[in-house]
Amino acid sequence: MPNYVVGHKVPDSDSICSAIALSYLKTELGEPTVPARLGELSPETMFILDRFGFEKPELKLSYAGESLYIVDHSDRVQGPDDIDDATILGIIDHHKLGDITTSTPLECWIRPVGCTNTIIKMMYDFEGIEIPKDIAGAMMMAILSDTVLFKSPTCTTADKKCVEALAEIAGIEDYQELGMDMFKVKSAVEGTPARDLVLRDFKDFNMKGQLVGIGQLEVIDLAMLDEMKDGLHADLQSLKEEGNRHSVILLLTDIMKEGSELLVVSDDTSVIEKAFDVTLTENRVWIDGILSRKKQVVPPLQDSFK
Amino acid sequence: MPNYVVGHKVPDSDSICSAIALSYLKTELGEPTVPARLGELSPETMFILDRFGFEKPELKLSYAGESLYIVDHSDRVQGPDDIDDATILGIIDHHKLGDITTSTPLECWIRPVGCTNTIIKMMYDFEGIEIPKDIAGAMMMAILSDTVLFKSPTCTTADKKCVEALAEIAGIEDYQELGMDMFKVKSAVEGTPARDLVLRDFKDFNMKGQLVGIGQLEVIDLAMLDEMKDGLHADLQSLKEEGNRHSVILLLTDIMKEGSELLVVSDDTSVIEKAFDVTLTENRVWIDGILSRKKQVVPPLQDSFK
Ligand SMILES: [Mn+2]
Ligand SMILES: [Mn+2]
Repeated sequence: MPNYVVGHKVPDSDSICSAIALSYLKTELGEPTVPARLGELSPETMFILDRFGFEKPELKLSYAGESLYIVDHSDRVQGPDDIDDATILGIIDHHKLGDITTSTPLECWIRPVGCTNTIIKMMYDFEGIEIPKDIAGAMMMAILSDTVLFKSPTCTTADKKCVEALAEIAGIEDYQELGMDMFKVKSAVEGTPARDLVLRDFKDFNMKGQLVGIGQLEVIDLAMLDEMKDGLHADLQSLKEEGNRHSVILLLTDIMKEGSELLVVSDDTSVIEKAFDVTLTENRVWIDGILSRKKQVVPPLQDSFK
Repeated sequence: MPNYVVGHKVPDSDSICSAIALSYLKTELGEPTVPARLGELSPETMFILDRFGFEKPELKLSYAGESLYIVDHSDRVQGPDDIDDATILGIIDHHKLGDITTSTPLECWIRPVGCTNTIIKMMYDFEGIEIPKDIAGAMMMAILSDTVLFKSPTCTTADKKCVEALAEIAGIEDYQELGMDMFKVKSAVEGTPARDLVLRDFKDFNMKGQLVGIGQLEVIDLAMLDEMKDGLHADLQSLKEEGNRHSVILLLTDIMKEGSELLVVSDDTSVIEKAFDVTLTENRVWIDGILSRKKQVVPPLQDSFK
């Protein structure tokens, strides 16, 4: 029976590419391991898999009785629902430390860098295993995605150096151009139902006992969302009720203007206004410089809920 | 203001030596960091500090407003009481993943090896920093202590290789002999009050909401405790009541015979009997092969509480 590697619910490119990269590394080290996923893939992730010739990882929701590595999260609410009945062999992540616990010792590589794949590159180097060309390409794309082409405040020197090293292994001359192609795919929102857009990169957080859902849509020009904003905002309201959430926030991020508009529905909007020191108008507000949910949205919200 | 490194309450040699080793590494990397401790030191740890010329780390119980690294634990109950008001920069540990969480990304090096100092040696190698002779000696002693001279089931190949490398750096020819000297110091229990012996290596665990305290006394010959067992057992009863604990267990470990006698006081001894598939006689039982609290006592107890 192989071990599994799985990222968070509503998988993003980092969760999928790090599952692929880590499962290859562990298998090479003599521990048969396969990548898995907890949900459907975004057009961005499909673009990466197609470009480097990978199949979708297995869709697997239940892990009872299995052994697995967790990547790109350490929060219970983001992981498999039956994780208590599984053995967690390790966690590779770059977020704040969440509430997953284990009953046996394990392997954790957690670093304050821009992307899980940057850490997995360290693991390959530590173990002295060569990264295959196609895996290097997928890892590189995940880092470009998570760091928004190095523009995100989460991006570190380690991430940039890692992309350069991976581009060389993958034989890619202009990674910036390939990254921009990926963000164009990500920006293609026309004709997509509001719910699909909201859930494309959506995570739930437990903030002092309250459930807060935060989605993010990254586009190369916010104007392309003008017609859709009302529909998106209406859908947040439904999503809040369906999940008994305290708040749902959608970040509409303009990666060229380098800022985000927040669409909010909340039982108490003052908690959100306090977190960012802003005033909402019709439950919306543009904030300059906000590109990162992890670094610029979750921590102030968490403080505001205290 | 420097950063701190601190191990668990009732510090053992691993907590103290890893605080010393990590603070030197971080300081060398340009991040002024000092070692601290949450309690008094055991004769074993004093033996190590004296042998390699170290002062006791600063006794510091409160970390509100400070930034710190946590070593040798990841359980809230074992760490500083006001950890919620501190910034956790990282966790270096070799136990099961506990319930500490953070609100910002951090650096975690957690590995299923026998000692935190084995992981800190990996960090020195990763960063390319040379380990000073005296620090290498202290790290080596901590590994010999945690792995019970390599006899514990927690001991891995990585721990053995690490001790050999550190012995070479420290210029120590016979590390087995020095390790045996350390365990002789640890075994000198005569004239020590029961409470001091019980608390010498004592940790509290949260097991499904119940507080369970587990102490361990390692000696080179269990016979030397014969006269003291009744006194120790009586003290466990007081300790249980003082802390509102569900159970208190003391492991009397004979490192030469390679097994432990368990002294138990509990609201429900059947949970403990079930965990180890044994029958207690006068709330005591000898179990062959049990040397490790972490690997052989905590996991079956945790399962039994489920
Ligand atoms: Mn990520
Ligand atoms: Mn230890």
